[in-house]
Amino acid sequence: MSKEIKVVKQVMEWNDDVSDKIKKLTSEKKVCIVNVMGSPGAGKTSFITRLIEELKDEYKIGVIEGDITDTIDAEKIDKLGIPVVQLQTNGACHIEAMSIEHILPMFDLDNIDILFVENIGNLVCPAEFNIGENFRVALLSVPEGDDKVAKYPLMFATSDSLIMHKYDMKEYFDFDDMRVENDTLDRNPKSKVFRLSSRTNEGYEEFISWFKDKVNESL
Amino acid sequence: MSKEIKVVKQVMEWNDDVSDKIKKLTSEKKVCIVNVMGSPGAGKTSFITRLIEELKDEYKIGVIEGDITDTIDAEKIDKLGIPVVQLQTNGACHIEAMSIEHILPMFDLDNIDILFVENIGNLVCPAEFNIGENFRVALLSVPEGDDKVAKYPLMFATSDSLIMHKYDMKEYFDFDDMRVENDTLDRNPKSKVFRLSSRTNEGYEEFISWFKDKVNESL
Repeated sequence: MSKEIKVVKQVMEWNDDVSDKIKKLTSEKKVCIVNVMGSPGAGKTSFITRLIEELKDEYKIGVIEGDITDTIDAEKIDKLGIPVVQLQTNGACHIEAMSIEHILPMFDLDNIDILFVENIGNLVCPAEFNIGENFRVALLSVPEGDDKVAKYPLMFATSDSLIMHKYDMKEYFDFDDMRVENDTLDRNPKSKVFRLSSRTNEGYEEFISWFKDKVNESL
Repeated sequence: MSKEIKVVKQVMEWNDDVSDKIKKLTSEKKVCIVNVMGSPGAGKTSFITRLIEELKDEYKIGVIEGDITDTIDAEKIDKLGIPVVQLQTNGACHIEAMSIEHILPMFDLDNIDILFVENIGNLVCPAEFNIGENFRVALLSVPEGDDKVAKYPLMFATSDSLIMHKYDMKEYFDFDDMRVENDTLDRNPKSKVFRLSSRTNEGYEEFISWFKDKVNESL
């Protein structure tokens, strides 16, 4: 196994160098990159769509949609009149900084304040790769179950915020929100935990207040 | 990127050699390995638990529980009095044949007919690695959404069966089951599509009939 491990490390070191380059560029251009991560079906696109609606009068927004294949999510964002680039990873399970570096010149960065990156639906690999982001938001939807922070700790330990998403569905599932909150704070005491529904809008007011503070710190 | 791609290919070729070795051994020992895949929270452990209850009088069953970390799922299986080994991947997003080869001697294979392998919760990477399985079952739970076969095609194209799981939740979600069925059959016309709920037991009778035929073919 040592061969595989060695190479992964090399890719990761290279990845971190490129991530630092991206951070330097976005700092000059006053662009805040937000890395949105979570399982397939956690509701990442609905969450980004909701934030676009809430923030578009105040901030200039762009989106990079990461997917294995297809353009389903990018089409949803495009309909909102927001600049969007579809990154297809051709089977790869995460986004690397090298792809973001390649895509950034496709945006007019002087006219972007917030650039959302919707990562591949996967609780494992995306967490290992910095992509030049200013901060990370991890989504865990209620139907996925309350043991997911314990089972996939890295993503939740490295994110600035945990969203319990589809929170309006809580009554239909055996889901202990305090277990999720405690498992998250045990691994990352600085994480902010929110309970949101993109369908009913529950919890968004508080989240957006935190989110805007994070963005404004970065710009 | 070529460096990374080259190495992944090497690992995969090695993986396939080991997978073939496992198949030879399990064919001699009359053990059927079932690779159970799906997202985090798709309900893989509930599904395996349900099958154990339905089949344990007829077949001798063992389980390999794959997880990034922890022993949460293995403890659930152990409570049923079924031989179980917890494979912790230490951060890796999939199971490789080499791990299964290492674990198999920990079971008394003369006393196992069906060996379930619960793969890591991930719709991407596990699909790329054969682990010596006789067949694959992919779970997609209703709350994850009906676009997942289109977005993560490899897993569903390479599985012998697609389970729409948590099907009792369909009324609460905007989920087009015919889209899922058609997207699956477009990619893999031989796949068998089932609608199951491990809570209400809906759909299990038909599924178990198919499952037993697959196991009996393999033994």
